[in-house]
Amino acid sequence: VSENIITLTTDYGLNDHLVGVLKGAILKANPDVKIVDLNHSVIPYDVLDGALSVGASYKYFPPRTIHVVVVDPGVGTERRPILVSAGTQYFIAPDNGVLSVVYDQAEDLTVRHITAEHYFLQPVSKTFHGRDIFESASFGEEITDFTRFTLPKPKAEGTALKGVVLREDRFGNLMTNFSAEHLPEGTAANGSFRMKVGDKEIKKLAETFAQGAANELVAIVGSSGYIEIAINKGNAARTLNARRGVEVILEVA
Amino acid sequence: VSENIITLTTDYGLNDHLVGVLKGAILKANPDVKIVDLNHSVIPYDVLDGALSVGASYKYFPPRTIHVVVVDPGVGTERRPILVSAGTQYFIAPDNGVLSVVYDQAEDLTVRHITAEHYFLQPVSKTFHGRDIFESASFGEEITDFTRFTLPKPKAEGTALKGVVLREDRFGNLMTNFSAEHLPEGTAANGSFRMKVGDKEIKKLAETFAQGAANELVAIVGSSGYIEIAINKGNAARTLNARRGVEVILEVA
Amino acid sequence: VSENIITLTTDYGLNDHLVGVLKGAILKANPDVKIVDLNHSVIPYDVLDGALSVGASYKYFPPRTIHVVVVDPGVGTERRPILVSAGTQYFIAPDNGVLSVVYDQAEDLTVRHITAEHYFLQPVSKTFHGRDIFESASFGEEITDFTRFTLPKPKAEGTALKGVVLREDRFGNLMTNFSAEHLPEGTAANGSFRMKVGDKEIKKLAETFAQGAANELVAIVGSSGYIEIAINKGNAARTLNARRGVEVILEVA
Repeated sequence: VSENIITLTTDYGLNDHLVGVLKGAILKANPDVKIVDLNHSVIPYDVLDGALSVGASYKYFPPRTIHVVVVDPGVGTERRPILVSAGTQYFIAPDNGVLSVVYDQAEDLTVRHITAEHYFLQPVSKTFHGRDIFESASFGEEITDFTRFTLPKPKAEGTALKGVVLREDRFGNLMTNFSAEHLPEGTAANGSFRMKVGDKEIKKLAETFAQGAANELVAIVGSSGYIEIAINKGNAARTLNARRGVEVILEVA
Repeated sequence: VSENIITLTTDYGLNDHLVGVLKGAILKANPDVKIVDLNHSVIPYDVLDGALSVGASYKYFPPRTIHVVVVDPGVGTERRPILVSAGTQYFIAPDNGVLSVVYDQAEDLTVRHITAEHYFLQPVSKTFHGRDIFESASFGEEITDFTRFTLPKPKAEGTALKGVVLREDRFGNLMTNFSAEHLPEGTAANGSFRMKVGDKEIKKLAETFAQGAANELVAIVGSSGYIEIAINKGNAARTLNARRGVEVILEVA
Repeated sequence: VSENIITLTTDYGLNDHLVGVLKGAILKANPDVKIVDLNHSVIPYDVLDGALSVGASYKYFPPRTIHVVVVDPGVGTERRPILVSAGTQYFIAPDNGVLSVVYDQAEDLTVRHITAEHYFLQPVSKTFHGRDIFESASFGEEITDFTRFTLPKPKAEGTALKGVVLREDRFGNLMTNFSAEHLPEGTAANGSFRMKVGDKEIKKLAETFAQGAANELVAIVGSSGYIEIAINKGNAARTLNARRGVEVILEVA
C-alpha cells in the first residue's frame, strides 16, 4: 500500500528549523507518511493568504490526502483545532477561517472539533502549537459553528465593477477577485475587455500569458478560476506598482 | 519496515542545486531513506547558528533518525568527519563544534571518527565535502577529544545579569541565552520581571505570545528552553532594532 | 523495490504553492514516487540558468532517476514536451534547450517527443503547463531536431582568453566558462596563474577554497568542471562587484 500523503501549509518560512521540527513530530507519530510542502511562505498570521493558497491547491492531490494548515494569529490561545473532510480530501487546521475557500468549493463537508486529548502530540508546547496539535488525524465531535469568512466580492459602480488584487505570485502575476462569471457575455470574442489598475489599462483578455506582446499587460482566467493580470516574460506587479488590496476596475458596460 | 529518516542541516541555502545534489548522493548510496530538510538557512559558515538549530530540533524526531549537518568554515581542509550517537539519535557532522548543543543535552554520548575510506562516497570532491563524506552512517574509532564549545552564559553585573540575543526567527522573535533557571524565584507569579534591550524594557513574562497586548513586548520561556522576546503579531527584532549579539539585561534584584 | 525518484527543477520559487501543486499532480498520477527538489530558484524564464543547474546535478542521482525540468519562457504556447534518456538518467522538459548541458555530457542520448495525449495529466491548464504535461514518463516518437544551444566559449584575444561569469552561488562564488583545459600546461605547478575581473586580479589557483588566505581571491576547478572564483569565508561576487555575464580574462601567454 502507498504511504499516506500529508501536505503542510504554514507561515513558518524556510529560514529556520520550524518546518523541520513539524515534520519530525509528524514522523514520530507515524513514520510511514509522505510529507509534501505545499507552501511555507504564507504571509505571517495572514488567514486570507493561507485560505487562498490552500484553496487553489488541494484539488491536485490524490484522494485521502491530509492537508495540515498552520496559520494562526491566535497561536497559544484556546483556538480549537478542527478536522475537516471535504470531498476526497482531509484538512487539519485551527478554526480561524483559513479553510474558508475550501468550504466554498466543497460538496461534501464535515467539520469536527478535535477534542480527544490523547490524539494530540505530547507535550503540547504553548509556543509552537503547529508541532503539537494539528497533525492528529483522529476524529472529534462534528460542529456547524465553525469560523468562515467570505472573500471580498466585486461591487457595481456605474458601468464598472470594482474589485481588488488578492495576491501576487513569484512572477509578479496579480490574482484579482474577479472570475469568468463577472465578464460580460462575449467579452472574449468581441475584444471589448477593459480593466484598469490605477491609471493603467489592460485591454487584452488572452487565453495564455504567451499571447501578450512584449511589455503588454494581459488578463487571463487563471487556473484558480480568478482573473489574473500578467505581462508575458515581465512583471505586472512591478509595472502596475500593485499588490494585495489594490483596486481593480472592470468595465462591464 | 519504515524507511530510515535522514535530516539535513546546512548553510547551502535554497537558491541553488546544492541541497538537491546532496540528496542525490544520499539516495544513490541508499534509495530507501526518507530525507527531511531540517534547516538549509544556517548563517553561512556559522557553527554557532548551526549548533542552536540542530540542538533545538533533533528531539522531535523518531528514534534512530540520522541528522546530517554540513556547516563548516573549514570545508576542503582535513576536518575529520564524526559519527555521533546521542540518546536515540545519530549525527554525522564535521568535528568543528556544530554539535555542541547536542553534547550539552545528551545523556548517552558516543563520538566516533569516521575513518573507513570505503564508506565515503567516491570520488571525494574537494569543493563539496557535504555531498561526499557526511552521509556515511558507518562506524569509526571512538574519540574523546572532539571539538566542543560552550554557549555564552549570562554574567552577573550589580543587580542584573547581562546576556545576549542568540538568534532571531522568521517572526522577529529573539532567542536570548537566558533560561528559566536565571529567573529569580516567583518572577512569573509576582510580576517582578524586568528585562532590557537598549533603552526598551520588557515587563511581562507571559506563558504565550498571545497574552501580549498589541505592540507589547513580552518574554516567554520558549520551546527551546531559552527565554525569547516577542511581540504578539508584531516583530520584536525590528521594534528593538536587535539581532544576534545584542546585549540583553535581566534584573534579578 | 525502491520507489522511483523524480527530481524537480523549476523557476517557480518557494514563495508560493506552485511547487506543491506540481507534486500533488505527480503523486496523483503515481503515489509511489519519491520526489526530490533539485532547484526551484532558477532565474525566471532563464533557460541557460536552468541548463547549468540540471547539468551540474543529474549525475549524482541513482540510475533511472527522472528529472523533470520546468523552465520555459514559452509556457502556454505549443512548445513540445520531450522525454530524454541520457546514460542512466531520464529527463522530461520542454524542448527549449534547457537540457543542452545534458546533451553535451551524455554518451547515450535519445530524445523523444511526448505526443501520446492520454499520458498527459488532464485537464491541461493553459496557464500552468508544468503541472500538467511534464511529469509524464511515457514514450513518444524519437526526434533529432531538438533545440540545443552551446554555452558561450572563451575567445582568444592577444595573450589572453576572454570568458564570462556563468553563475553565482549562495556563497558568492563565481562560476566562469573556463574549464581546466583552458589552463596553460603546468599552471597549477608553476604559479603562473593570472585571471582578471574588472581591475582586480586573481593570482592563486588553489585546490580548495580553504587554501586562500583571509580576503584573498582564489580560483579553483569546481566540482562542475568549470573554474570558479572564490574567497575563503568571503564573498567573491560582492568583492568583485560581478555577476553573470561579467567579463573574465585568463592570461595564457
